[in-house]
Amino acid sequence: MAPQPSELAFVPFVSVEHMMGLVHHIGIETVLRDLATAIEADFKRWELFDKTPRVASHSDVGVIELMPTSDGEMYGFKYVNGHPKNTRDGLQTVTAFGLLADVDTGYPKLLSEMTLLTALRTAATSAMAARHLAPRGAKCMAMIGNGAQSEFQCLAFKAICGITEVRLYDNDPAATAKCARNLAGLGLKVVPCTSGEQAMEGAQIITTCTADKQNATILTDNMIGAGVHINAIGGDCPGKTELHRDILLRADIFVEYPPQTWIEGEIQQLDQTHPITELWQVISGATKGRRDDKQITLFDSVGFAIEDFSALRYILGAIQGTGFYTQLDMLADPDDPRDLFGMLQRSNP
Amino acid sequence: MAPQPSELAFVPFVSVEHMMGLVHHIGIETVLRDLATAIEADFKRWELFDKTPRVASHSDVGVIELMPTSDGEMYGFKYVNGHPKNTRDGLQTVTAFGLLADVDTGYPKLLSEMTLLTALRTAATSAMAARHLAPRGAKCMAMIGNGAQSEFQCLAFKAICGITEVRLYDNDPAATAKCARNLAGLGLKVVPCTSGEQAMEGAQIITTCTADKQNATILTDNMIGAGVHINAIGGDCPGKTELHRDILLRADIFVEYPPQTWIEGEIQQLDQTHPITELWQVISGATKGRRDDKQITLFDSVGFAIEDFSALRYILGAIQGTGFYTQLDMLADPDDPRDLFGMLQRSNP
Repeated sequence: MAPQPSELAFVPFVSVEHMMGLVHHIGIETVLRDLATAIEADFKRWELFDKTPRVASHSDVGVIELMPTSDGEMYGFKYVNGHPKNTRDGLQTVTAFGLLADVDTGYPKLLSEMTLLTALRTAATSAMAARHLAPRGAKCMAMIGNGAQSEFQCLAFKAICGITEVRLYDNDPAATAKCARNLAGLGLKVVPCTSGEQAMEGAQIITTCTADKQNATILTDNMIGAGVHINAIGGDCPGKTELHRDILLRADIFVEYPPQTWIEGEIQQLDQTHPITELWQVISGATKGRRDDKQITLFDSVGFAIEDFSALRYILGAIQGTGFYTQLDMLADPDDPRDLFGMLQRSNP
Repeated sequence: MAPQPSELAFVPFVSVEHMMGLVHHIGIETVLRDLATAIEADFKRWELFDKTPRVASHSDVGVIELMPTSDGEMYGFKYVNGHPKNTRDGLQTVTAFGLLADVDTGYPKLLSEMTLLTALRTAATSAMAARHLAPRGAKCMAMIGNGAQSEFQCLAFKAICGITEVRLYDNDPAATAKCARNLAGLGLKVVPCTSGEQAMEGAQIITTCTADKQNATILTDNMIGAGVHINAIGGDCPGKTELHRDILLRADIFVEYPPQTWIEGEIQQLDQTHPITELWQVISGATKGRRDDKQITLFDSVGFAIEDFSALRYILGAIQGTGFYTQLDMLADPDDPRDLFGMLQRSNP
């Protein structure tokens, strides 16, 4: 009989089914709040992370990216694709998985689905940023783009920022209907709207999350009143933006990692001399976020590796003592590390 | 009851146990020959690959790397670590896994262990290169460094180049004894040696594969006679080399991907004006490999992403119709791609 793999050979794996089970076990709003806390803590120690713009492989129809980072103790990376045309074929625009490894040994410590986890961490990051940037006491959010991310955004702004009303708009009314249906009974006042303008009535926070891979103008300058916070998460690859350039010129702009955001964010429309602020500096207290109630703040979010790292570390902690993972026989672990060939030979039936 | 994941949610996963089973099912020498054929075919179409130096995260004790590439139809990457001190703690110096995805959709199509597969593909690449560079009719190889890769190298040179004798040397006699023991009965004359000089007696091919993360001098110039082929695979990260610089000055040097080899290979000891030849140009017939029987040829191999891509594609083909994989529920796949949140909600028990 072939020898059994040793314990060192196994990597905990969180499948989609286990991730869903874990989220329900903990409670989705608690997960969103915990993720915001974990991400905020890592933004506070931003400087010690090994940072690099994501490594992208572009094709005519989409992009596949690897997003690595390390805090010196753990190493993490995410695999993520972006294929806007996928939905036409019944596939996800974005799928993702991620890995954590021990820097000291290089051994993987967690493999996890991240399609769901990315939606959760993106929403948690948005709401965490808004806690520093949105007008005080904001209760109403316009949600422009009612696709796969939209309900997560709405719920995160409820759980983390105390939003009580969301006003939904999508150029496809079926998407708005789906979003409204999913949010029913979750404690938010949900108002489906038939135009972007209508959605923005009374909103102190405007979240844009649309998926077309092109320079679009979801928001024009005349739609934006003084004092609002814009959470722009859909402009996240080269040639894909959502806001009219004039809005950028009126707003104070906050970003995750400038070398990446200049390539992928709304600010790809600007000259690189334009002033921007790194969000981590606001969170660490080094600089101010919102200064007054007339200011337009813009979080030009493209998603950064550290957010995935924080999310994976949170999941690694959260699965301990639960059944929400399986063990994958992913690492060759011979008794004598130099005897890989002997391990192979001895496995011959 | 929670809905079952759809077929699209699953990614075939080849565990270590399944990889070992598959290799025995096909036969290790056949696998090595098949891999050499697959890698050679991809070297012939080298120019169409999306190439980038690997993305490395270095620490004091090792390195974690991501190695992506794409041929426009499939995308592949490997995760691999290198931690020479790991063996002291009973861990592998190198562990690895890899992924193939469909460029058109970004959906992963295969996840596989690659600790074993890397040893196999490295050996197949070495022997494939030697078929173009080693002296005709070479029958004897010196194997300097008898660690985890050594038996794979010896067997690949037997299966692919017709080597009949291997002469083993390692500064740890226990490693040599282990290598000799593992190779017994596999059709090679195996000669354990007590010095590098002794191992090189009569050898037309010299393979060096040692693991110290430092500039070492495994081979000095006076040890190298005219006409030999040197297969140097241990010098594979910054500050880690195995050959004395004088050998490089006498040899014709062949490399995989120059931007990576200048950083990681033996040639990090040379000025970047020094002439080198890209192996793919030899294989495609654009330039000559070995010209005469006095020439010293050196394959300064550091391993490149295309070799892993070839290996993963081979495995994806080889597992079809076999039981040597399982299906991982790795991708969220809601019925309506925009309804990720609804899928999560409906899974609530």
